[in-house]
Amino acid sequence: MKKIVSLGEVMLRLSPPSNERFFQAKQLNIEFGGSEANVGAALAFWGNHVIHLTAFPDHEIGLSATANLRRNGIDTQFIKYYPGRMGVYFLEQGAMQRSSKIIYDRADSAFTKLDIKDFNWNEILENVDALHWSGITPALSQECADFTLLALKEADSRNITVFGDLNYRSNLWNFGKEPHEIMPELMKFTNVMIAGTRDFNNCLNQEFETFEEAKAELFRQFDSLKYISTTKRKSLSSSHNKISAKIVSRNNIFRSREYNLTHIVDRVGTGDAFAGGLIHGLLHHDPQQAVEFGMAAGALKHSVPGDILLCSESEIQELVLGESIGKIKR
Amino acid sequence: MKKIVSLGEVMLRLSPPSNERFFQAKQLNIEFGGSEANVGAALAFWGNHVIHLTAFPDHEIGLSATANLRRNGIDTQFIKYYPGRMGVYFLEQGAMQRSSKIIYDRADSAFTKLDIKDFNWNEILENVDALHWSGITPALSQECADFTLLALKEADSRNITVFGDLNYRSNLWNFGKEPHEIMPELMKFTNVMIAGTRDFNNCLNQEFETFEEAKAELFRQFDSLKYISTTKRKSLSSSHNKISAKIVSRNNIFRSREYNLTHIVDRVGTGDAFAGGLIHGLLHHDPQQAVEFGMAAGALKHSVPGDILLCSESEIQELVLGESIGKIKR
Amino acid sequence: MKKIVSLGEVMLRLSPPSNERFFQAKQLNIEFGGSEANVGAALAFWGNHVIHLTAFPDHEIGLSATANLRRNGIDTQFIKYYPGRMGVYFLEQGAMQRSSKIIYDRADSAFTKLDIKDFNWNEILENVDALHWSGITPALSQECADFTLLALKEADSRNITVFGDLNYRSNLWNFGKEPHEIMPELMKFTNVMIAGTRDFNNCLNQEFETFEEAKAELFRQFDSLKYISTTKRKSLSSSHNKISAKIVSRNNIFRSREYNLTHIVDRVGTGDAFAGGLIHGLLHHDPQQAVEFGMAAGALKHSVPGDILLCSESEIQELVLGESIGKIKR
Amino acid sequence: MKKIVSLGEVMLRLSPPSNERFFQAKQLNIEFGGSEANVGAALAFWGNHVIHLTAFPDHEIGLSATANLRRNGIDTQFIKYYPGRMGVYFLEQGAMQRSSKIIYDRADSAFTKLDIKDFNWNEILENVDALHWSGITPALSQECADFTLLALKEADSRNITVFGDLNYRSNLWNFGKEPHEIMPELMKFTNVMIAGTRDFNNCLNQEFETFEEAKAELFRQFDSLKYISTTKRKSLSSSHNKISAKIVSRNNIFRSREYNLTHIVDRVGTGDAFAGGLIHGLLHHDPQQAVEFGMAAGALKHSVPGDILLCSESEIQELVLGESIGKIKR
Amino acid sequence: MKKIVSLGEVMLRLSPPSNERFFQAKQLNIEFGGSEANVGAALAFWGNHVIHLTAFPDHEIGLSATANLRRNGIDTQFIKYYPGRMGVYFLEQGAMQRSSKIIYDRADSAFTKLDIKDFNWNEILENVDALHWSGITPALSQECADFTLLALKEADSRNITVFGDLNYRSNLWNFGKEPHEIMPELMKFTNVMIAGTRDFNNCLNQEFETFEEAKAELFRQFDSLKYISTTKRKSLSSSHNKISAKIVSRNNIFRSREYNLTHIVDRVGTGDAFAGGLIHGLLHHDPQQAVEFGMAAGALKHSVPGDILLCSESEIQELVLGESIGKIKR
Amino acid sequence: MKKIVSLGEVMLRLSPPSNERFFQAKQLNIEFGGSEANVGAALAFWGNHVIHLTAFPDHEIGLSATANLRRNGIDTQFIKYYPGRMGVYFLEQGAMQRSSKIIYDRADSAFTKLDIKDFNWNEILENVDALHWSGITPALSQECADFTLLALKEADSRNITVFGDLNYRSNLWNFGKEPHEIMPELMKFTNVMIAGTRDFNNCLNQEFETFEEAKAELFRQFDSLKYISTTKRKSLSSSHNKISAKIVSRNNIFRSREYNLTHIVDRVGTGDAFAGGLIHGLLHHDPQQAVEFGMAAGALKHSVPGDILLCSESEIQELVLGESIGKIKR
Repeated sequence: MKKIVSLGEVMLRLSPPSNERFFQAKQLNIEFGGSEANVGAALAFWGNHVIHLTAFPDHEIGLSATANLRRNGIDTQFIKYYPGRMGVYFLEQGAMQRSSKIIYDRADSAFTKLDIKDFNWNEILENVDALHWSGITPALSQECADFTLLALKEADSRNITVFGDLNYRSNLWNFGKEPHEIMPELMKFTNVMIAGTRDFNNCLNQEFETFEEAKAELFRQFDSLKYISTTKRKSLSSSHNKISAKIVSRNNIFRSREYNLTHIVDRVGTGDAFAGGLIHGLLHHDPQQAVEFGMAAGALKHSVPGDILLCSESEIQELVLGESIGKIKR
Repeated sequence: MKKIVSLGEVMLRLSPPSNERFFQAKQLNIEFGGSEANVGAALAFWGNHVIHLTAFPDHEIGLSATANLRRNGIDTQFIKYYPGRMGVYFLEQGAMQRSSKIIYDRADSAFTKLDIKDFNWNEILENVDALHWSGITPALSQECADFTLLALKEADSRNITVFGDLNYRSNLWNFGKEPHEIMPELMKFTNVMIAGTRDFNNCLNQEFETFEEAKAELFRQFDSLKYISTTKRKSLSSSHNKISAKIVSRNNIFRSREYNLTHIVDRVGTGDAFAGGLIHGLLHHDPQQAVEFGMAAGALKHSVPGDILLCSESEIQELVLGESIGKIKR
Repeated sequence: MKKIVSLGEVMLRLSPPSNERFFQAKQLNIEFGGSEANVGAALAFWGNHVIHLTAFPDHEIGLSATANLRRNGIDTQFIKYYPGRMGVYFLEQGAMQRSSKIIYDRADSAFTKLDIKDFNWNEILENVDALHWSGITPALSQECADFTLLALKEADSRNITVFGDLNYRSNLWNFGKEPHEIMPELMKFTNVMIAGTRDFNNCLNQEFETFEEAKAELFRQFDSLKYISTTKRKSLSSSHNKISAKIVSRNNIFRSREYNLTHIVDRVGTGDAFAGGLIHGLLHHDPQQAVEFGMAAGALKHSVPGDILLCSESEIQELVLGESIGKIKR
Repeated sequence: MKKIVSLGEVMLRLSPPSNERFFQAKQLNIEFGGSEANVGAALAFWGNHVIHLTAFPDHEIGLSATANLRRNGIDTQFIKYYPGRMGVYFLEQGAMQRSSKIIYDRADSAFTKLDIKDFNWNEILENVDALHWSGITPALSQECADFTLLALKEADSRNITVFGDLNYRSNLWNFGKEPHEIMPELMKFTNVMIAGTRDFNNCLNQEFETFEEAKAELFRQFDSLKYISTTKRKSLSSSHNKISAKIVSRNNIFRSREYNLTHIVDRVGTGDAFAGGLIHGLLHHDPQQAVEFGMAAGALKHSVPGDILLCSESEIQELVLGESIGKIKR
Repeated sequence: MKKIVSLGEVMLRLSPPSNERFFQAKQLNIEFGGSEANVGAALAFWGNHVIHLTAFPDHEIGLSATANLRRNGIDTQFIKYYPGRMGVYFLEQGAMQRSSKIIYDRADSAFTKLDIKDFNWNEILENVDALHWSGITPALSQECADFTLLALKEADSRNITVFGDLNYRSNLWNFGKEPHEIMPELMKFTNVMIAGTRDFNNCLNQEFETFEEAKAELFRQFDSLKYISTTKRKSLSSSHNKISAKIVSRNNIFRSREYNLTHIVDRVGTGDAFAGGLIHGLLHHDPQQAVEFGMAAGALKHSVPGDILLCSESEIQELVLGESIGKIKR
Repeated sequence: MKKIVSLGEVMLRLSPPSNERFFQAKQLNIEFGGSEANVGAALAFWGNHVIHLTAFPDHEIGLSATANLRRNGIDTQFIKYYPGRMGVYFLEQGAMQRSSKIIYDRADSAFTKLDIKDFNWNEILENVDALHWSGITPALSQECADFTLLALKEADSRNITVFGDLNYRSNLWNFGKEPHEIMPELMKFTNVMIAGTRDFNNCLNQEFETFEEAKAELFRQFDSLKYISTTKRKSLSSSHNKISAKIVSRNNIFRSREYNLTHIVDRVGTGDAFAGGLIHGLLHHDPQQAVEFGMAAGALKHSVPGDILLCSESEIQELVLGESIGKIKR
C-alpha cells in the first residue's frame, strides 16, 4: 500500500433526511466532507496510509470533525486548530426532476486562516508516495493559495507524484485574485490533472473549445504533466445519470465503460470517489485499470449516503468485472 | 402579484415513514393538507396574497393546522373555530406495483358544520382577483354546499375570476344530495374548470364519451366558462407515471409537454400543484405558458414529500425550459 | 381456509435504516424473520390457520420474537424455549449497483439445540392440511435434521400435503453432514418442491445441466412428488430485477407472467412470499392460478420493508389482473 | 393461570415524541390502548388466558389494532369488525409543571355501534374465571351499555367473578343517559369494584363525603360486592407523583406501601396496571398480596412508554420485596 | 389585545437529539430562535399582534426562518432580506451535573448588516402599544446599534412603552465599542428594564454591589424608567433549578413565588418566556400579576423543547393559581 | 501526557431508544463498548496515547468496531482480526423503579479465540507508562486468561505500572476454571487494584467481611500492590443514585466527595469512567486528586449516553471544583 497526503478544507455537511426540502426540515443529518478529504478517505478505506492536512476551529465541532476523519482511517496528526468557525454546507438532496441544492456557509472558516508556518514538511512528507490537491483550496484565501503552492513545491522537491483536481467553482474565488493568477503556477507541479475543458479555460483564462484542444496545449505547456483525466456525466434527472471517464497520456487514451445509474441515493462526492479510485489505480496498476477502477468507484458512490465512498476494493473490482451485480451476498 | 381566495377543508394527514405499510408502522408523519389549501399554498409560495377560508376545531390540533397554513404563507385571519373534531386522512405511500392507500376519517369534522353567517364577504373579497373552489367542498354537507354557492355568488357579483376543480369523488357524497343537484349551479359561476370527462359526467349526470363532446356541451351550457383544463396520467406503477395536460378555450387548445416521472416520492397533491400553477399562469401570463407552468409544477410536486409543492417560481421555470435538470445547484 | 404447519428458525434481523452501510449506521431496524415463518406469515395474513414450530431463547428477545409471530397472525402455542442465544442476521440493503449484504450470526442458537421430544405430533398435526419445510433447517444441526425428518414422516403418515423449499445454502452445512446425506430422505416425503437446478445438484450430489433434466430424474426418483416449482430472476441492479416463475407436474407446465421490478424497496423474503402464494394457490385453486398468485405475491414483496409480505389476497389478485396498478386507492 | 374476559374499546393512541407539544410535533408515535384491554394485556403478560371483546373498523388500521392486541398475548378471536371509524386519542405527555393533555376523537367509532347479537356467550365464557369491565364502556352509547349489562348478566349466571373499574369520566356520557340510570344495575353484578368516592357519587347520584361513608353504603346496597379498592395519588408535578392503594372487604382493610415516583416516563395506563395487578393478585393470592402486587405494577407502569405495563410477574415481585431496585441486571 | 413590536436577530438553532453530546451526534434538531423574537412569539401566542423586525439571508434557510416566525403567529411583513449568511447557534443540552453548551456562529450574519434606511417607522409603529428590545442587538454591529437607537427614538416620540432586556453578554461586543458607549443612550428611552446588577454594571461601567444600590441610581439617572425587573436562579444541576423574580417601581416591590424545577427539559428561552409574560402582564394587568404571570411562564418554558414557550394564557394562569399541576387533562 | 495500553473485548451494544423495553422496540441504537476500552477511550479523550489490544471478526461490523475506537482517539494498530462472530450485548435502559437489563450474547466471539502469538510485545509496550486490564478478560476463555497473564508479565518486566479492575462477574466464568485458579497470579503483577470486598472474595476464594479486612490481607499478600480503590453506590432507583469512592495505600486513605445523581441518563460505563479518571489522576497527580477526578468523571458519565465518557479534562475539573454546575456555557 502507498502513503499519500491530501490537503483541503473539511466542512460540516447538514442535510434534511429523506427527500425533504430545506423549507420543511425539522432535523438535519450530520456528515463531514470536503473534496480532498473524500478522496483521502476512499484511499484510506483501501488500506493506503493517508495523511490529511487541514485546519479546524478549536471547539467541540472541530474536534468532532477530526474524530470523523480518524474514524474513516485518515491520519489526523498534522491537523491544526485555530480560533474561528467551522465551514458549513447545507445540502438538499434532489430527486426526480428537482435538482439538489447546496448553500455554502464557509466564508471565514478556521481553515481559510491557517498559518503556513505550522506545518513541518520534512515530517509530513517522509516516505510519501503521492500528494493530492484540488482547485478549491487556492480559491478560498491567500493563505490557502500560499499553503497549496508550498505543499506542491515541497512534494515536487521530493519527487512525490502530485495529483490535482482542478475543480473550478466560480462562486469561490472571492479573496481578490483570479484563478489564472494562481492556478498555472500550481499546475506546473502537478503530474496528474483531473479536469474538463471548462476547468482548463477558467484556470488558464483560455477559450478551448474541445477537450482535445485543451489537452494538446496542456501537455505542451506543462512539462511535468503525465496524465489528464476527465469524466462525462449525462444528467437525465436527479435520480438518473449516465457517467463515463477517460484518462489520456501524451500518447494514449484509455476509456472506462459507461454506467447507467438509476435510483441515485447521493450524488455528492461521486467525483471524489472517481478521483480516489483513479489515484489508487495509477499508484498500484496501469492507466486502463485505473480509469475502470475509478469509474466503478464513482458509480458505486451514488448508492452510498454521505460524502465518502465506503466501498471496499473487492466490491469495486466486482463491479469492474460485472459480477453478481445486485445479488444478495450472504 | 395577485390576491386570491381559496376555500375548503384542511385535514390532518398521517402517514407511515419510508415505505412502511399501515400494518407495521410505529410512527406517523404529520402534514396538513386539503386540495384547495394545497392550491393556495402553492400560489402563496410564489408571492400571491392568498386568503384561505376554512374551519377547524377549537383545540390544539386545530390551532396547529392554522399555524401550518400560516407557515406556508397563507393569510389565515378568516379561519373559524368550532367545537368538534379535526378531519383526518391516513395515507400509506405506495411503491412499485403496490398502490398508495388513503383511509379517510373526515366525517363530522368541524368544517362540515361551519356557520355560513360567520363570514363577512365584503371584508374577505376586498380587492380579490380570483377565487378557487373544488368539488370536494359541496360534497361534504349541506352547510358546505351552501357556503360554496354563496362564496361563488359573492365573487361573481364582484367580477372576481372563479376557478373550480370539479374533482368528483364518489365516496364523499353522503349527506343526501346527488352531485347533479348541486354542482351545475356552482359551475354556472365558474370561469375556469379543471376536470375530466368522468367529472363532467358525474356532476351533470351525463354520459359524455369523449372530452371533446363534454367540452362542446359545457361551453354551450355555461356562458361564463372561459377555459377547461384537464390532465392525463399514465400510471405504470406507484413509482413511475407519465403526465401531461391541456387547456382549451372556446376556440383554442394549448398542450403541455409530457413528463416521464420515475422514482416518485409523493404523488399526493400533484393535481393541486398543477391547478396552482395553471391559476398562477393564467393570472400572470397566457394559456400556453399557464399549462406548461402548471404541468411543470405538477411534475415537480412528485419529488416533494407532503401535500404542498414548496417549489419556487424559478425552479418551475427552469423545468419548463428544460435547463440543468438534476444538476447540483451550488 | 386451510390449516398449515410451518417449521424453521426465526432470527432477529438487524438492518441500517435508509440506504446506510453497516460502517456508518448508528441505529438498526428490528425485524424478525426466517424463510419458513415468512411463508407462514403470508399464509396467515390470508386467513389460513398457521402453526409455526420453532424454538427461541428463554429471555426477553425470544419472547419478543414470539410476540412478533403472533402479531402476524401465527399460532405460536407450540413454540419451545431453551437457554441459549437468539439467531441473528445483519442485513445491509443494497441500492443501485451495490449489492445487499447479509452477515449471519446464527450459530449455536437455541433453535439448533431444540429437543425433538418436546413436540407432540398428534396435537400439532390435528386436522392439518399442509406442512411446509425448507432446506435451511436440516443444514443447521443434527437435531434440526432429525426434527425435520420426524415432522415429515408424521405428516406423511397422516396424508398431509408436504411442501419443501430446498433452498441450498453452502455456508450453512457446517455440522458434519453433506446435503446429499440428509436431503434425499426428506425429499422422499415431499409432494411439492420449490427448487432450481443448482439446489437439486447440491441436494442429490448430481450435475444436472438443465432444469428439464433435473425434473425428469426427480419425478422418476420420488414417487410422492407431484409438482416442482422454480423462479427465474434477472438482476440488473439491486434496485431493478425481472422475475418470473413456473410450476411443472409430471405432464404439464404452467408459467407466470414476468414482472419488471424497478425501485425495489426490500428484496429479502421475496422467494418466501412466492412460496406462500404458491402454497395458497395450490391449496385453494389450480396450478396456473397458483403460479400467478405466487409470482404476484413475490413481486409485491419487493415493495414492502421487512421479511414479511403484508399484502392482502385482494391486493395480490388485483396485480394478477393488472388492475389499477399504482393508482391511489381512497 | 386463570381465564379472564375483558371488554371495552381500544383506541389508536397518537402522541408526539420526546417532550414535544402538539403544536410543534412533526411525527406521532402509535400505540393502541384502552383501559380494559390495558388490564387484559397486563394479565396476559403474566400468563393468564385473556379474551378481549371489542369491535374495530374493517380496514387496515382496525386490523393493525387487533394484531397489536395479539402481539400482547391477548386472544382476539371474538373481536368483531364493522364499517366505520377507529376511535382515536391524541396524547401530549406532560413534563414538570406542565400537565399531560388528551384530545379524544372517539365519537361514532365502530365500537360504539357494535351489534350485541354478534357475541356467543356460551363460547366466550366457557371455563372463564373472571370478567373485567369499566365505567367507560356504558358511557359510550346505548349499544355499549346494553352490551356491558348483557355480559355481566351472562357472567353472573355462570358464577364468574366480576371486576369493575367504575372510572367515571364526565365528558363521555353524551348519548342521553345519566350514569345513575345505567351504572347501579351494572354494579349489582360486580364483585370487586375499583373506584373512589367521586366515582361512587357520580354513578349513584350521591354525595358521599368520605370513602368510608361510600363504602358502608355500597356494601349495604350491593349484596354481591366483596371488595372495593381505591388508589390515592398526590401529583407534585407531571414528573413526580406519590401513589398508594387500599382494598377493603366488609370486615377488613388492606393497604399497600406508598411509592415516591420521580422521573415519570408515561403516566397513562398506570391505573389499569394497578387494576390488572389487583385482579391477578386476588385470583391467585390474598387481598394483602393483591394490593401490594397491584400497586407495584402501577408504580412500574410509570416507567414504561405506552398504555401497556410490559413488566413480568417477577419484576413486580422484586419491587414488592424492595430488592435490587435500580441495579443493572445482567 | 395589544400591538407590540420586537426587534432582534433570529438564529438557526441546531442541537443534538436526546442527551447526546456534539461529539457523538449524527443528527441535529432544527429550531429558530433569538431572545427578542422568543419574547414576541410568546406574546403572539396569547393573542397580541406582534411585529418582529429582523433581517435574514435571501436564501431558502432565511425563507424558512421567516416561515417559522409566521407559524408562531408573528407578523413578518417588515422582515428584510440581504445577501449573506444565517446566524447559527449550536446547542448541546446539558443533563445532571453536565452543563449545557452553546457554540455561537453568528458573526457577519445578514442581520448585522441590515440597512437602517429599509425601515419605514410610520408604517411599522402605527397604533403600536409597546416595543421590546434587548442588549444583544446593539452588541452585534454599529448598524445594529444605530438601528436600535433609531427604533427607540421613534417609539419614544410616539409615546410607545419601551421594554428592554439589558442582557449583557461579554463575548458579543466585538465591533469596537464598549457597552457603556452605547447602552446608556438606549436606556434613556426605556420604560421597563429587565436586568440584574451585573447587567447594570456592564452597561453603565459601574460597580454596584447590590441590586438595591443599582436600582436607586437607575431611577435617579433615567427619568423615563418606571419599572425594573430581575430574576433569581439557583442552579443545582442542569436538570434541577429554583427560580423566582421581582419587579420594582420607584416606590414598590412585587415578588413572585419561587418555583422548584426538577426534570428540566430545555432551559433555553426561559428568560425570554419570563420577559414575555411580564410584558403581557404589565400591558393587561398590574405589576403583581405581571411578575407572577411572567415567572409562571418562565417556569413552564423549562418543560417545552425549543426556544419558544408555546403555552397558552390559561395554562399559565393555572400554574399561577397552583391548580391541578401535573394532572392529565382530558 | 502518558502512553497507556488497555486490553479487553469490545462488544456491539444494542439498546432500544428512549425508555423503551426490549419487548416494544422497533429500533436499536448502536454503540461499541467494553470495560477496558471504555477506560482507554476516556484516557485518550484527555490526550493520552492509548493503545487498545483486542480482536474482532474480519467482517464489516468488526471493521466498524475498530473505526469507532479510532474515532474515540484510540490507537488501533495492534487489533487483530479472525473469522468468527462479534460479541454483542443488548441493553435495556432502566428508569425509575425499573432496573436496567443486559442480555449478553458474547460467547464464542472472535476475541475469545485470539491467538496469543499474534502480539509483538516489544513493539506494543515500547515507551509505555501504564497498562490496564480487568477481571472480565481472563473469565472469557483459556486463551484470554493466557493472554492477560502474558501481557502482565511483559509489562512487569518493563516496569510499567499495572492497573487492574477485578470486576468479578459470576455469569462469565464458563470455560472450566474458577476465578481463584486464575486471578491471584494476575493480581501478583498488579500495582493498583480497583475492587470491592465481593470481588476480592470471589477472586481469592475468601470470605472477608469488610473492606478493611480484605485490604489488610491484600497488602500483606501482594508485594507489588500500591493502591486499592473502591466505589460505593447507593441505588435509590434507576434514575437516582448516590456515589462516592476512596483509594487506600498501605498507610493512607483518600476519600472523594459523594455525588447525589438524579435524572440519570445512562448508568453503563460509569465505573469505567471512574477507573479512567483514577488512572489519569495517579499518572499525573496525587491520590487525593486522583480519587476526586475519578469520581467526578464517574459522576459525569451518568449524563452521557453510550459506554464512553466523552467529557474533557476541564469539564471534570470544573465539577471537582463545584463551579457553575448546570449553567449554560456560551
